[in-house]
Amino acid sequence: MIETPYLLFLGDAPDGLAAKVAQGIRDWRPENCVGQYRMESCRADMNLPDVTLEEAKVAGAKTLVIGVANRGGVISQAWKKVLVQALEEGFDLASGLHNLLRNEPDLVAVAQATGRSLHDVRVPEVSYPIADGVKRAGKRVLAVGTDCSVGKMYTTLALDASLRARGMKSTFRATGQTGILITGDGVPLDAVVADFMAGSIEWLTPPNEEDHWDVIEGQGSLFHPSFSGVTLALIHGGQPDALILCHEPTRTHMRGLPGYALPSLEDVRDLSLRLAQVVNPECRVVGVSINTQHMGEAEAARYCAEVEARMGLPTVDPFRHGAGRLAEALAG
Amino acid sequence: MIETPYLLFLGDAPDGLAAKVAQGIRDWRPENCVGQYRMESCRADMNLPDVTLEEAKVAGAKTLVIGVANRGGVISQAWKKVLVQALEEGFDLASGLHNLLRNEPDLVAVAQATGRSLHDVRVPEVSYPIADGVKRAGKRVLAVGTDCSVGKMYTTLALDASLRARGMKSTFRATGQTGILITGDGVPLDAVVADFMAGSIEWLTPPNEEDHWDVIEGQGSLFHPSFSGVTLALIHGGQPDALILCHEPTRTHMRGLPGYALPSLEDVRDLSLRLAQVVNPECRVVGVSINTQHMGEAEAARYCAEVEARMGLPTVDPFRHGAGRLAEALAG
Repeated sequence: MIETPYLLFLGDAPDGLAAKVAQGIRDWRPENCVGQYRMESCRADMNLPDVTLEEAKVAGAKTLVIGVANRGGVISQAWKKVLVQALEEGFDLASGLHNLLRNEPDLVAVAQATGRSLHDVRVPEVSYPIADGVKRAGKRVLAVGTDCSVGKMYTTLALDASLRARGMKSTFRATGQTGILITGDGVPLDAVVADFMAGSIEWLTPPNEEDHWDVIEGQGSLFHPSFSGVTLALIHGGQPDALILCHEPTRTHMRGLPGYALPSLEDVRDLSLRLAQVVNPECRVVGVSINTQHMGEAEAARYCAEVEARMGLPTVDPFRHGAGRLAEALAG
Repeated sequence: MIETPYLLFLGDAPDGLAAKVAQGIRDWRPENCVGQYRMESCRADMNLPDVTLEEAKVAGAKTLVIGVANRGGVISQAWKKVLVQALEEGFDLASGLHNLLRNEPDLVAVAQATGRSLHDVRVPEVSYPIADGVKRAGKRVLAVGTDCSVGKMYTTLALDASLRARGMKSTFRATGQTGILITGDGVPLDAVVADFMAGSIEWLTPPNEEDHWDVIEGQGSLFHPSFSGVTLALIHGGQPDALILCHEPTRTHMRGLPGYALPSLEDVRDLSLRLAQVVNPECRVVGVSINTQHMGEAEAARYCAEVEARMGLPTVDPFRHGAGRLAEALAG
């Protein structure tokens, strides 16, 4: 668990894309952000107050989050100077970088001396149990996709926000590094040891009030041979009552696998439902989320209408149209 | 890769059951065993020559394999004395115990001083790649089960032996600790990090001659919520051309999960095939392996005949009837 609120470290990000993690936090949990820290050459801007470490501290920030990708997989000396100073000022550090904070001897030494924490969200910090498959109170909805990276995180964050806006009880449950940094909590499922995958998701989505929804971020795809086991562990550990199908229509093959065509939404519906019903016979598919970022406005609307008619399910691009109709489908 | 041949360490095993691992090695790879080492109170016997460390060395043994479970999860001082002496005599050590050899400071110190290796087969020793799903030359057969621990390892070991007895090219591919100790090689799949599960199985079953069979040990079950993700990674990483269905008919619920009934063989056939065809459209189910250990001779024969008629597939208990008909099904 990462302490909030955050100071977002944008470093020397050459553009907004390099600061995608910061943007995700800014978009979905603005209340967690007291400001941004930008180095001189930084070209990204989250429209947050530019603050010094001292000012962020006064404003109540507990953790400096590295919201930017590093170049060449190295934590530069220019960054280090700020990170060390942040530890000295009393901030914890949190990062989703491939190279871990805990592998940097200088950061480790200063963190020990100052009693601060280094959070590497790519690495599990918990000893997860083995799944027991026991039915838990409360409701759960999971995003499943035709492929990796089709918008499952965005869909579930938007759905969670819509549910809460309607006054429903909802918690977004992060299963990847960006989601974990956004909410300060979650399971880095791709880094969990095989035997404990499903158990980590049971742990993440414990018994709750009967009218509470856990909105679980999906990972991978049942049809993506590299990561399908992770997806099935999510389905069986998550015990979903509802599934949202996610798709990106312009993709020509499975991500990273030129030899593999995408499955149809019908394929994903049937196989996901069959597997989900092993743990929850009442599970149903409630809606479709289409990532239309590579389509024009009219084409996007036409495509969603066509899928809606074909599948008989509410179909939206949550980025363009909001997730309200998906939230309605859960409420109804 | 563990160097063979082995000296089997039976320690102070109170009975044969405690030395199950040694029995597996003895049954399936007798050519790997130069002898057994028994302490005074040992009540297990593999019908191998009782040898001293010196005699085993002279006979060519390279590795002392701990073939017995330890009591109370502790490697006792009585064992330690033998293990340290074995390292001094030039043996490597191999173990599938929960408590790792590498966590015993005295063994580590002596292994370092003597330049010997400590193999803990519960822990991966390789950096596995991420699966790429590319079609590989050669044939592969995988055991899938209605449940965990229904006889998938036994089935695949027996099938591999049958194929080789018929002069066919075959390699048993271990995916669990006992199998790894039996063959000296394999992937401890339940301990692999999620993102690399399918890749570890691609690594284990590389391109081969077109008429060579990899006989892949199965793990878990698609219908076992605790471990189904591991099973799917095996199916997608293994890219099987053929599946063998494994079942234990007297089981009343899924192992460790009193709330879960076993699926039918038809369920396992349909779901496994659907998922396998994502990576190999030519995959087919070729036979059924029934574990009839809790049935009398006549009942077992009747049950297998009934399943054979119902499923239209050769159905045997490889322990009782041999795996010849399964090997035939692959050859045909």
